[in-house]
Amino acid sequence: MDSKNNKIIELENKCQEIRDEILRVVSKNGGHLSSTLGATEIIVAMHEVFDSKKDPFIFDVSHQAYAHKLLTDRWENFDTLRTFGGLSGYTKPSESEHDYFVAGHSSTSISLGVGAAKAIALKGEQEERVPVVMIGDGSMTAGMVYEALNELGDRKYPMVIILNDNEMSIAKPIGAMSRMLSSAMASPFYQRFKKHTENFVDNFGESAHYIAKRMEESLKLITPGIMFEEMGIDYIGPVDGHNLKSLIEILQKAKALKKPVIVHVQTLKGKGYEIAEGKEEKWHGVGPFDLDSGASSKKPGLKSATQIYTESLMHLAKNNEKIVGATAAMPSGTGLSELMELYPKRFWDVAIAEQHAVTSMAALAKEGFKPFCTIYSTFLQRGYDQVIHDTCLMDLPVVFALDRAGIVGEDGETHQGVFDISFLRAIPNMTLFAPRDEKSFHQAMAFASEYEHPCSLRYPRGAFLEASLPESQPFELAKAQLLRASAGDILFLGYGNGVGRAAQTADLLEEDVSLLDLRFVKPLDEEMLLDLATKHKKWFVFSDSVKMGGVGSALLEFLAKHKCLDVALVSFEYEDAFITHGNTKLVEESLGLLPAQLAQRVKESL
Amino acid sequence: MDSKNNKIIELENKCQEIRDEILRVVSKNGGHLSSTLGATEIIVAMHEVFDSKKDPFIFDVSHQAYAHKLLTDRWENFDTLRTFGGLSGYTKPSESEHDYFVAGHSSTSISLGVGAAKAIALKGEQEERVPVVMIGDGSMTAGMVYEALNELGDRKYPMVIILNDNEMSIAKPIGAMSRMLSSAMASPFYQRFKKHTENFVDNFGESAHYIAKRMEESLKLITPGIMFEEMGIDYIGPVDGHNLKSLIEILQKAKALKKPVIVHVQTLKGKGYEIAEGKEEKWHGVGPFDLDSGASSKKPGLKSATQIYTESLMHLAKNNEKIVGATAAMPSGTGLSELMELYPKRFWDVAIAEQHAVTSMAALAKEGFKPFCTIYSTFLQRGYDQVIHDTCLMDLPVVFALDRAGIVGEDGETHQGVFDISFLRAIPNMTLFAPRDEKSFHQAMAFASEYEHPCSLRYPRGAFLEASLPESQPFELAKAQLLRASAGDILFLGYGNGVGRAAQTADLLEEDVSLLDLRFVKPLDEEMLLDLATKHKKWFVFSDSVKMGGVGSALLEFLAKHKCLDVALVSFEYEDAFITHGNTKLVEESLGLLPAQLAQRVKESL
Repeated sequence: MDSKNNKIIELENKCQEIRDEILRVVSKNGGHLSSTLGATEIIVAMHEVFDSKKDPFIFDVSHQAYAHKLLTDRWENFDTLRTFGGLSGYTKPSESEHDYFVAGHSSTSISLGVGAAKAIALKGEQEERVPVVMIGDGSMTAGMVYEALNELGDRKYPMVIILNDNEMSIAKPIGAMSRMLSSAMASPFYQRFKKHTENFVDNFGESAHYIAKRMEESLKLITPGIMFEEMGIDYIGPVDGHNLKSLIEILQKAKALKKPVIVHVQTLKGKGYEIAEGKEEKWHGVGPFDLDSGASSKKPGLKSATQIYTESLMHLAKNNEKIVGATAAMPSGTGLSELMELYPKRFWDVAIAEQHAVTSMAALAKEGFKPFCTIYSTFLQRGYDQVIHDTCLMDLPVVFALDRAGIVGEDGETHQGVFDISFLRAIPNMTLFAPRDEKSFHQAMAFASEYEHPCSLRYPRGAFLEASLPESQPFELAKAQLLRASAGDILFLGYGNGVGRAAQTADLLEEDVSLLDLRFVKPLDEEMLLDLATKHKKWFVFSDSVKMGGVGSALLEFLAKHKCLDVALVSFEYEDAFITHGNTKLVEESLGLLPAQLAQRVKESL
Repeated sequence: MDSKNNKIIELENKCQEIRDEILRVVSKNGGHLSSTLGATEIIVAMHEVFDSKKDPFIFDVSHQAYAHKLLTDRWENFDTLRTFGGLSGYTKPSESEHDYFVAGHSSTSISLGVGAAKAIALKGEQEERVPVVMIGDGSMTAGMVYEALNELGDRKYPMVIILNDNEMSIAKPIGAMSRMLSSAMASPFYQRFKKHTENFVDNFGESAHYIAKRMEESLKLITPGIMFEEMGIDYIGPVDGHNLKSLIEILQKAKALKKPVIVHVQTLKGKGYEIAEGKEEKWHGVGPFDLDSGASSKKPGLKSATQIYTESLMHLAKNNEKIVGATAAMPSGTGLSELMELYPKRFWDVAIAEQHAVTSMAALAKEGFKPFCTIYSTFLQRGYDQVIHDTCLMDLPVVFALDRAGIVGEDGETHQGVFDISFLRAIPNMTLFAPRDEKSFHQAMAFASEYEHPCSLRYPRGAFLEASLPESQPFELAKAQLLRASAGDILFLGYGNGVGRAAQTADLLEEDVSLLDLRFVKPLDEEMLLDLATKHKKWFVFSDSVKMGGVGSALLEFLAKHKCLDVALVSFEYEDAFITHGNTKLVEESLGLLPAQLAQRVKESL
């Protein structure tokens, strides 16, 4: 027993070292903090009970997997976390054989576990390998999880699912599921009642035994696990997520069951860093900060597009009570927090549930309201069918406000907001536009609030690119704004943040360049473009979006339709490859997208 | 009481008339049958208790809403069901003010209900309006439902959800949810036990009262409703779905509760048409049939693309045990039934759960298997993020076999498989190709089975268009096949079923036309295309897909990249509008897509 205790002490020390290293690096590089700190013991226990070279280790979202990285040959490189060329903030198989899958979007883990379990069964490796899944309570609200549990409960593949319950889910816990999980009443109530029953049975003898037993069985059901048990999945818990000894014992037990089991583990968010302990959204994802005080060490930068969005929507919502909105578990990220506070009946956090966010907003539009469905570009991929089938097919005036459009920096591959133009442009009844700066953002929002059809506007993470340009004019449907007119052959066409990039590039060229702010990529300003096609024969397109099906593609379709055969178009949108993580400027440099590089590319193509 | 009974008898007669009319029209026009017949009393009761001009009537999928159409001013036009220009097979607000929303894809109803309830609350109309949602047990497996229930259970909007449980879900019921719902044990067990308890309490007096009461409350939980109750939603049921009197009473009670309540109604699929009663997939959606015998009155047509898919996959799966596959509740529609029977451990129906289907198959690919994820083009919209984030980002060799690509005929707007090229082409690592006929389909499948990256092949509903063409050559990555070479200026480029359309069009022209089968739209056969760009300056594109971001767009991007400015391209892909229902030929005619019309359009554009 002593050696066993020594082992536990050793592992507890390991946890402390891991936390220290995470705090050291995250306070320097920024990153995900509270959930990582809270999950340290769980991950150490996982590595004690399972073998990450053999057993599929599946981390949902995987922002909480820093301890796993540190335990699997990445301690020395951990300094490079989330930096360009360095370690990813998420699991990534190309980084280590111990990382089973890419993650970044939530709620994929149980589906991956089911797939892995099917493979293990087919290979006859059930004795040697068991998938172990770790998922936070916030991720449990997304529909994918239920789709996967539904099949798992039916087919009963051996799998251990660790439900890391820190009542966090990035923002405040939302929804029935969360309430159910966190209901602390279950366990003590059950304990008290069991005692009561035992006395009762002692007093009334045999005949009461049967009933008491049934009663006990029934009452057992009134635990957070009832829902899982009903779905055919065993439930163990709640377990103290910071008690290594019991975690290891319970995971061993769960692994030995050879069936699907959920281990419900309760953890304290931010555990081990007092300033962050128990705090909600604030310490979820952080920029660099001072370890002693917890104060952000980032200098206040330019006003972010998200801030402008909030200001603009606040103004509109104040004057029009028909304006409503939803976020899918990103109230602060999307800038909706203030609106939810001011208008709690008109702005909703619907939890991680993009599908439901889109479709419920469509119904509000049908009822005469004006919904602003505020979602990161990358997460709207989760609600694509709902945009087509529930919004555009009915031609309903939902506004899709797409934050984090373009390269998002440190989050990287999984989070780049680069596909939205391609996948939305193809949908009938959809209108696409984008602001280029603060003033145009307010104007775009005013347009959106009056527009009677589905529409989507996109804006970047952080601040818009700055450029000295004529003032933005109010938005009118399908109207572009010509910002610079020259007699030369070259026309720069910018969209959204691409306008600033185009202007900065133009400023580096000797030639005079005409500059158009497209504003609308659907519908295009055909009149303006036809006129420009007669005057300028060399078009260059600037937009923070993929090239395939993107802005350049829309313009090529336009030129083909009007038989403008003499216009040569070059698009500086993203090439056909996933884009890595790191400081946005460095990533853009690696893609040749900095203004100096673009100016060079323009010169070369003339 | 007599007048009440008379009313019930009158309504029962109404149900009979409705069933007769549905059978008459569906046996003639084809359509959805079993679920509609089973839901007749429910819908009649809904109209007794709620007012479809006021209360949002929300039908999930809405293929079971024929009785609703008959009850709301569409009896006289019912003959035109699913025909071109006639009534839609689904609810459609543009058809009647009694239709609240478009539906066709499953599992959107509760989200719509939540949106409607929010609007009602904001308008202060809770006393006058209550959303009533009808959803089948099959639709309960899709994640969207849980996302919506999660918010509903939290916010407690008044809403009546009628769960129409016919243990059907198109195919066999799958998953834990379905098993739970259909467990008949609950009710009789509870009844027996309650009796037992009452006796017990009588014998032991007061002190036992408390315990017995608790026990009863606990046992009540062991009903199909426990899961909903846990989520914060009241549960009533199970109720006999063919007993009008009790249906009306219970719906009245549920409506009066002024909170979210699920009424679990058990119905017999096909009720009232003996031949179909209790049958599973066969009578779900049917073509025209003989009412007396139930025999299909459709003449056997050409071999469908789905049949070729099945044959091809059977052949491949026999010789390669790494081949696995999934369908999302469409085993017969996608042609996977036979494979599931032959290889029950390698082919899975995962229920209506496209997200989970995609991601779980991605994990199988990671484990070295070769998954064929077989999904209708329109339903892959539900798994879009999973294609990007879980499949392509990891560059995993999942094959997406997209059935019903192009115009799907009678199902119409909600089901057209027209967006897949646009939304998939933008994803890095994705390869897109398509067969044009039976032989090329087998070759495409052989290629897919060996290919080591994500890929997608698409094929039409029904048979490929026929044309007399040179034999298809084996598929090689990014290799097109030149089918006809002429010295003229015109090049027809076909993709998939578009090749047959191009050939039929070419046959109607006097000019000699070169004809290319593109085969791959990503990556393109650049060498071949560059060569052809020097020889032919008038390109016409034929593909059953939307123009925006589609095949023509891919070719325009190619031409721009290579500065082939002298090639004029016209795409005959679909314009930017949703495409209506009806016989495919008639729909195509309305769009000017029949070969004779296309030939005319070619002439006009020369």
